[in-house]
Amino acid sequence: MAAFGVLAVVLSVYCVCFLVEGTYMVYNTSGGVVPEKINVHLVPHTHDDVGWLKTVDQYYVGSNNSIQVACVQNVLDSLIPALLADKNRKFIYVEQAFFQRWWRQQSDGMKETVKVLVSSGQLEFINGGMCMHDEAATHYIDMIDQTTLGHWYIKRDFNVTPRIGWQIDPFGHSAVQAYLLGAEVGFDALYFARIDYQDRAKRCAEKNLEVIWQGSKSRGSSSQIFTGAFYAGNYEPPTGFYYEVNDDSPIVQDDIELFDYNVQERVDAFVAAAYFQANVTRSNHIMWTMGTDFKYQYAHTWFRNMDKLIHYVNQDGRVNTFYSTPSIYTDVKHALNESWPLKSDDFFPYADRVNAYWTGYFTSRPTSKGYIRVLSGYYLAARQLEFLLGRIKSGLTTDSLADALAIAQHHDAATGTEKQHVADDYAKRLSIGYEESKDVVAASLGCLTQSPLSSECKSPVTNFNQCPLLNISYCPATEVDLSVGKKLVILVYNPLGWKRTSVVRIPVINENLSVSDSTGKLILSQLLPIVNASVSTRKFYVSAYTGESPSSAPKYWLAFTAVVPPLGFSTYVISSGQSSATTELIPNTVDTGSIEVGSGNLKLIYSGKNGKLMKYRNSRNSVNVSLEQSYTYYVGSTDELQASGAYVFRPNGTHTIQFEEKIPLTVYRGTLYDEVHQTFSSWVYQTTRVYKEKEHTEIEFTVGPIPIDDGNGKEIVTQLKTMIGNNKTFYTDSNGRDFLERIRDYRADWDLQVDQPIAGNYYPINLGIYIKDKNTEMSVLVDRSVGGSSIIDGEIEIMLHRRLLHDDGRGVDEALNETVCALDTCMGLTVQGKYYLRFDPLGEGSKWRRSFGQEIYSPFLLAFSEQDDKWTNFPTPTFSAMDPSYSLPDNVAVITLQELQDGAVLLRLAHLYEVGEDNDLSSLATVELNRFFQNRKINKIKEMSLSANQERAEMERKRLPWKVEGSNTEPLSDLRGGPIDHVKLVVELAPMEVRTFILDFNSDIVPYNMR
Amino acid sequence: MAAFGVLAVVLSVYCVCFLVEGTYMVYNTSGGVVPEKINVHLVPHTHDDVGWLKTVDQYYVGSNNSIQVACVQNVLDSLIPALLADKNRKFIYVEQAFFQRWWRQQSDGMKETVKVLVSSGQLEFINGGMCMHDEAATHYIDMIDQTTLGHWYIKRDFNVTPRIGWQIDPFGHSAVQAYLLGAEVGFDALYFARIDYQDRAKRCAEKNLEVIWQGSKSRGSSSQIFTGAFYAGNYEPPTGFYYEVNDDSPIVQDDIELFDYNVQERVDAFVAAAYFQANVTRSNHIMWTMGTDFKYQYAHTWFRNMDKLIHYVNQDGRVNTFYSTPSIYTDVKHALNESWPLKSDDFFPYADRVNAYWTGYFTSRPTSKGYIRVLSGYYLAARQLEFLLGRIKSGLTTDSLADALAIAQHHDAATGTEKQHVADDYAKRLSIGYEESKDVVAASLGCLTQSPLSSECKSPVTNFNQCPLLNISYCPATEVDLSVGKKLVILVYNPLGWKRTSVVRIPVINENLSVSDSTGKLILSQLLPIVNASVSTRKFYVSAYTGESPSSAPKYWLAFTAVVPPLGFSTYVISSGQSSATTELIPNTVDTGSIEVGSGNLKLIYSGKNGKLMKYRNSRNSVNVSLEQSYTYYVGSTDELQASGAYVFRPNGTHTIQFEEKIPLTVYRGTLYDEVHQTFSSWVYQTTRVYKEKEHTEIEFTVGPIPIDDGNGKEIVTQLKTMIGNNKTFYTDSNGRDFLERIRDYRADWDLQVDQPIAGNYYPINLGIYIKDKNTEMSVLVDRSVGGSSIIDGEIEIMLHRRLLHDDGRGVDEALNETVCALDTCMGLTVQGKYYLRFDPLGEGSKWRRSFGQEIYSPFLLAFSEQDDKWTNFPTPTFSAMDPSYSLPDNVAVITLQELQDGAVLLRLAHLYEVGEDNDLSSLATVELNRFFQNRKINKIKEMSLSANQERAEMERKRLPWKVEGSNTEPLSDLRGGPIDHVKLVVELAPMEVRTFILDFNSDIVPYNMR
Repeated sequence: MAAFGVLAVVLSVYCVCFLVEGTYMVYNTSGGVVPEKINVHLVPHTHDDVGWLKTVDQYYVGSNNSIQVACVQNVLDSLIPALLADKNRKFIYVEQAFFQRWWRQQSDGMKETVKVLVSSGQLEFINGGMCMHDEAATHYIDMIDQTTLGHWYIKRDFNVTPRIGWQIDPFGHSAVQAYLLGAEVGFDALYFARIDYQDRAKRCAEKNLEVIWQGSKSRGSSSQIFTGAFYAGNYEPPTGFYYEVNDDSPIVQDDIELFDYNVQERVDAFVAAAYFQANVTRSNHIMWTMGTDFKYQYAHTWFRNMDKLIHYVNQDGRVNTFYSTPSIYTDVKHALNESWPLKSDDFFPYADRVNAYWTGYFTSRPTSKGYIRVLSGYYLAARQLEFLLGRIKSGLTTDSLADALAIAQHHDAATGTEKQHVADDYAKRLSIGYEESKDVVAASLGCLTQSPLSSECKSPVTNFNQCPLLNISYCPATEVDLSVGKKLVILVYNPLGWKRTSVVRIPVINENLSVSDSTGKLILSQLLPIVNASVSTRKFYVSAYTGESPSSAPKYWLAFTAVVPPLGFSTYVISSGQSSATTELIPNTVDTGSIEVGSGNLKLIYSGKNGKLMKYRNSRNSVNVSLEQSYTYYVGSTDELQASGAYVFRPNGTHTIQFEEKIPLTVYRGTLYDEVHQTFSSWVYQTTRVYKEKEHTEIEFTVGPIPIDDGNGKEIVTQLKTMIGNNKTFYTDSNGRDFLERIRDYRADWDLQVDQPIAGNYYPINLGIYIKDKNTEMSVLVDRSVGGSSIIDGEIEIMLHRRLLHDDGRGVDEALNETVCALDTCMGLTVQGKYYLRFDPLGEGSKWRRSFGQEIYSPFLLAFSEQDDKWTNFPTPTFSAMDPSYSLPDNVAVITLQELQDGAVLLRLAHLYEVGEDNDLSSLATVELNRFFQNRKINKIKEMSLSANQERAEMERKRLPWKVEGSNTEPLSDLRGGPIDHVKLVVELAPMEVRTFILDFNSDIVPYNMR
Repeated sequence: MAAFGVLAVVLSVYCVCFLVEGTYMVYNTSGGVVPEKINVHLVPHTHDDVGWLKTVDQYYVGSNNSIQVACVQNVLDSLIPALLADKNRKFIYVEQAFFQRWWRQQSDGMKETVKVLVSSGQLEFINGGMCMHDEAATHYIDMIDQTTLGHWYIKRDFNVTPRIGWQIDPFGHSAVQAYLLGAEVGFDALYFARIDYQDRAKRCAEKNLEVIWQGSKSRGSSSQIFTGAFYAGNYEPPTGFYYEVNDDSPIVQDDIELFDYNVQERVDAFVAAAYFQANVTRSNHIMWTMGTDFKYQYAHTWFRNMDKLIHYVNQDGRVNTFYSTPSIYTDVKHALNESWPLKSDDFFPYADRVNAYWTGYFTSRPTSKGYIRVLSGYYLAARQLEFLLGRIKSGLTTDSLADALAIAQHHDAATGTEKQHVADDYAKRLSIGYEESKDVVAASLGCLTQSPLSSECKSPVTNFNQCPLLNISYCPATEVDLSVGKKLVILVYNPLGWKRTSVVRIPVINENLSVSDSTGKLILSQLLPIVNASVSTRKFYVSAYTGESPSSAPKYWLAFTAVVPPLGFSTYVISSGQSSATTELIPNTVDTGSIEVGSGNLKLIYSGKNGKLMKYRNSRNSVNVSLEQSYTYYVGSTDELQASGAYVFRPNGTHTIQFEEKIPLTVYRGTLYDEVHQTFSSWVYQTTRVYKEKEHTEIEFTVGPIPIDDGNGKEIVTQLKTMIGNNKTFYTDSNGRDFLERIRDYRADWDLQVDQPIAGNYYPINLGIYIKDKNTEMSVLVDRSVGGSSIIDGEIEIMLHRRLLHDDGRGVDEALNETVCALDTCMGLTVQGKYYLRFDPLGEGSKWRRSFGQEIYSPFLLAFSEQDDKWTNFPTPTFSAMDPSYSLPDNVAVITLQELQDGAVLLRLAHLYEVGEDNDLSSLATVELNRFFQNRKINKIKEMSLSANQERAEMERKRLPWKVEGSNTEPLSDLRGGPIDHVKLVVELAPMEVRTFILDFNSDIVPYNMR
């Protein structure tokens, strides 16, 4: 055909237009690696966002195409015949949320066909979670859960395990992704596109795009994974090689009888693009990602052109090309037996160009992020209770919440970078999931409290209500008039593996209430007024969320201290009568001196003059620091080239604007805790709680609606200023797990060009942030994903809310201007949340960060039951799933306890400490499963990969070993708990280790009281 | 599923989101007609323009998608599996230019598959020409040829004959389409979308969209065809039922497990749309055209949704629907045995809304239209010569010209409504076709002139050159210096069936030249100067068209009278020596009195004062009329709602703008003819010729570049004003065949609301236009498609050229502003052409219109050979394919004589007169085939349908008879020639009859001199 090419050039005006009877062409696509040439691995793929501009279902069925022409159903429908047409063709599919929608619509015949394609390797599942989760605004438990769910589907339907991590779109990459969701799920490699443009430039220049990434200091070489960043910063083909049905790339026109024959031109362009990429890539293998968002809607158009490229490029011979997959590419790279550079820490923050730091999305849509985190914790507890109840085959399960949470981890969901209607869709799914799961929870609690113990529990006597809007003081179950002789039973469930003591607060309408524990003993309680700010928030948002106007507001919060066994519950009874301890009110008219708050070890000292926080003092450990706390905002840039928006944080200059200097202050003192109420402005309200028995302070903020009548979008931060000399250094967690050191205006991998001294120093926070100097640590823990930093020494700041009026040009094409409508009014979104602050002597902070972090993630689950005055007690008023004498060690958490569809039980245990993090707790921990599971006998136990789709031993056997440049050829031994003893059933956990087990219980034994 | 619909409404907030293992759905698409219901015939189709915004090849392969996302290859590639997936699915395909491109790329296996689909009726070819030809700017011979070519492919590949006319997009509909390209090709029905909006409104209101259309007065009921105009004026689905892969109609979402389930909503919309259409349609059958331009690029998306519609709509039961085709629809309509209204004349002009008359395209791109017409006539002659030569299997043929001409009949080609680059593509194809055909012509003429007569002629001795740019006085073959003893031989071929005498003109460089005929006898000749205007046109356009600068210009036109036998040639020899008769020049400074021009019967009298034409006088028949001739222009409207453009003619008001009052005049008098040169303006030049032996005048105009420096687009017309009292009535031809009566500001079918008194009275002209009163007829014949009218009584106007600066909003998205670039300059296009004018006593005009009309269509074909002074003569210096004593009767023309690929010969004979048109010639004519084919013996003769794809008898037997309202149930007997006598081989032709034959010659006999 080369001769034809020449001919075509000669006949540039007049093509050869004689009629020919037949020109059926068979393309040779059978090539493989040619060692001495540049090998271009063509990897056909589609990147299907599990919601972004359209909802996941709209993307699947292809509706709402006026927003975006995208239909995943078409991708998969058209893919199968395209693969069948040529056995050399290959395709990878990623997002199981879509694949499962498609799969269950298929006929048995089609399913068999697809199974053959999968087993032959033509169709390969990679990454394999329900979605391609975000890596900044996600919690590691959610990441594991959504990956496990997707991997489980793949295992169930195809009996295969994905080999490759494929995080091509997320906006920066986390250490947890590399080692937990990479190495620990058995992936042989991890690929992605988005790393900082400065970093990428340097890696291109030095051929360091492909590295060995070690995500965890603690986990040693076992946490290493071969990692490739794409040279162009995207996951698309080289320019001119797009073949979607509606693309306008030059297709390969190889019919000599038609005009515009262009084979030589396309071959030349191919070779040039290959040379270009080879110049920045180590070895003679390069990967072309042949696809992008929602491509292959008519797969044939891609394969037809790629067939031709393979045929003519190989005929040309300058480079070699063939259909490939990331697995094949990885195997070939591995077979080269080379050593690769080592990469530590992570790939945050991400800027795709100058002034474009994608650090806004760490906080975008804070209420969505809050809802996800609340339900993440709820889901963990609900699965425990589902397990304790026994999974009811025909009834309700937590599955829809699993599905909703999985989808919500998508990198345009948890991130807040989706269109508003899509955000609404995620919320709807979560709400549906919650509704279904709360019935599981209620049924389980009903059964667990029920007698007789031995019979099956089908319809529990007690109907437990729950209050998802308790945070805005809305709880119909507790807002009952107890003065007429009724009793309110509160069941407090503790999902943690430790006994736990915390204050519980519920809204009530009566004044004179007493609280008694499950033995009938009266316990201390405290009554606080529900302030006007809460009442108006309650009225508006209850209407917005439920569609109903709540009846008149409750007047008080009733608080008491609950003490609950591990994986168990205690019950408390509220009744009318004896007055609760009242709360002393300090009026807000103090204007001199200082005000000390806190009746335990911890004291906060406020200025009586301006109402501002001045000092934090812990009498137990002699921490005594001066402390300022403020709310400030950045004005979002409206720069045409780069505005601040859903993705990008770009403050308009570095000056922050202060609120009013004098802050009204009201203090409520009580027996259990003191509360400080501060109105920073008409749209920033804060309640600070100091618990008598705790040594941290809880700060509840209510921010919004952010005013925009000045035409400025605003990004609200809270700042905590101390004298701690942290020398530019601060620490943020990776997805709620390892803490990484951050240094202001510095990157370990390249000489940072600082253009954005604020946005460029923001990092994602899921658990907390801390700074330290030689004496003191200041830690802040958060209740959801946020962005934060330490912009000046001694300071920590957390971005709490964002309202912006411009789109930032990354495709969502909407300004991040969230509004809520109710009661015939629409207003900007108000966010209410909490953060927690504590100071510790140097080296002592991690205990609180880890233990209390678990409490934040897994708060008490409250359930309510109204009883008449004759009611005395449940048959089982307190409960623990564990041996009463047992508790998990302080450094271990149960992060999954779940009965699977086949009745087997999935258990994940996580060591909470890093190597060297704590003098006591960074040590090998042990868990005694026989005592952990009271009354159940473990029949069989298998240790699994993190996503539980293969046995751990098999995973380790199969996983490719890689060599790191400059290190010994032998991988470092990793710190790991020993193999489980199948008799003693003791599990060891090394620092930061997560171990995953599938358990079979002996079904002869009736476990617990409801089976 | 109706219950689910209700459920979906109830659960408007929360869908039913439980996980289900499998929901594979089988749709019931098996329905057919249900007599008592409204039956919605879903007709899946794509409308694939054979060039418009992209070239035909670009549309086929899908390149240039930035202009339009269109790829016919995808349509056909995706269609086949979609049809195979469900045997109830159907599809129609129309344009063979595309289908053939696809077909020859397919494997044998695929071809077999497609054949099965065609034979089962799942895939049906309708219309079936190479393109969906235009009906206004096309000549009936071209329409027949392009249809025949397409039908031949279908017959060859599938052995089927299309049954349905499907002219859904052309911009108005011609009588010739109805009866020749409809009834005469055996179609049972004709469907289209575009009729005047006022007409459509009335037909909708009266349920008269479906009629029996009789296209020819002369051909009686045999010219009737069942015709349906679409109710919405387009060929698209009802709003909301578009399912292209990138459409945004609401797809049918019937997966109850996903959000946005919308089955009931879509069913309701379907039923409402069906009711709406049924209300304007006679009977309970309606057709939905499920597709539009370039749809089904992923056919699956349409069928998936239509499957669902059929399933759920039939389940709903209010209306009935199923996959159908226009054939099925037609059969069902026919089976109703109803009578239908009769429609006469045609559907021109077409306005799609107020002020939007699509009458501009009658003239748009006049040089393209001229090129097509020139090559159409050339192709007719070239095929005769190809036949006479014998079709050479391995060598050159006229096939590429056939293909190019076929494509050029497309309704965005001949119309001039394509983008400029596409117009260039058509021209390139025509040019290539010409280049190939001219070699066939040269070879044939070389052989025909050659000796010995009996041997096969493989390489003719004589090399004949031809001069396609003779019209701009460029002919290298004649521009040779004959003073050095060379001889120039001119072969004059006459494609007509009659002996013919006409003046031939060639550019020469010498003065003293003599012309002798093939017997060596000197004949009269005349030398005229080539004027400066011609020289500059020649220089610029030769450079533009050939890329070469011509050598110095020839100085003279040498004219002589050629006399040529039918289907034959004469040769003439030009040599140096004796001086030719010179031409007398009257200088242009006459300023008083009048100037009489013409040395024969016809005299033109010009004003000596202002140079204007004043009178036309024929001394033979005493016609003596005053006559004004002028050029004027309309300024194209730039109205935002409707500008004048490629499609739409919308003058800015009705005032025309006159050119200069005094017109410079130069007269050349000669022995053969007189010439009058007039410069109307710097950009309008005119040469008027009065031949001594002819009674018409030939007007050659050179118009352009139209100036636009005043910012106005202009549309140039020539006006001829007389005192003829034509009482609003004028006559224009239908595609060069029947003349239709036109009445100004009037439509036969409805009360015309006159908004555009000029544009709304324009009609397409391919042959001519005439007006008459009690005494006189004035006829104008044209050399290409133009628009024209009689805007005031006594006047005829013809639009010659258009240059516009705005797009008219019909999709082409370019202003019709043609420019030509050469010699480092670009300028507006200049058009040079001719029209012919004659006056006759009432009733005598048609002889000239018909006979001379044939001469215009089929001019002498000139070929040139340079010989040295020793050369004496060809072995065969004159030739006729016919018996020397035979000639076709004056009322019959050969419109096709062509050797087919299998060696059989296609012959079409056309009666040229309508019933009552001429006292003598509107009579039954006879053709003696034995004398027509000299030296050949007809072995076998079959009368065929017009497109020659089935025997005539079979066509008549199969064709459905229809009943006309109010007429006898028996169809009127039609006037038709009797069956052919296979012994005598005499063909009878009734007025306007066209008869088509396939002949087999006895191959034992060596025909002619070259076999």
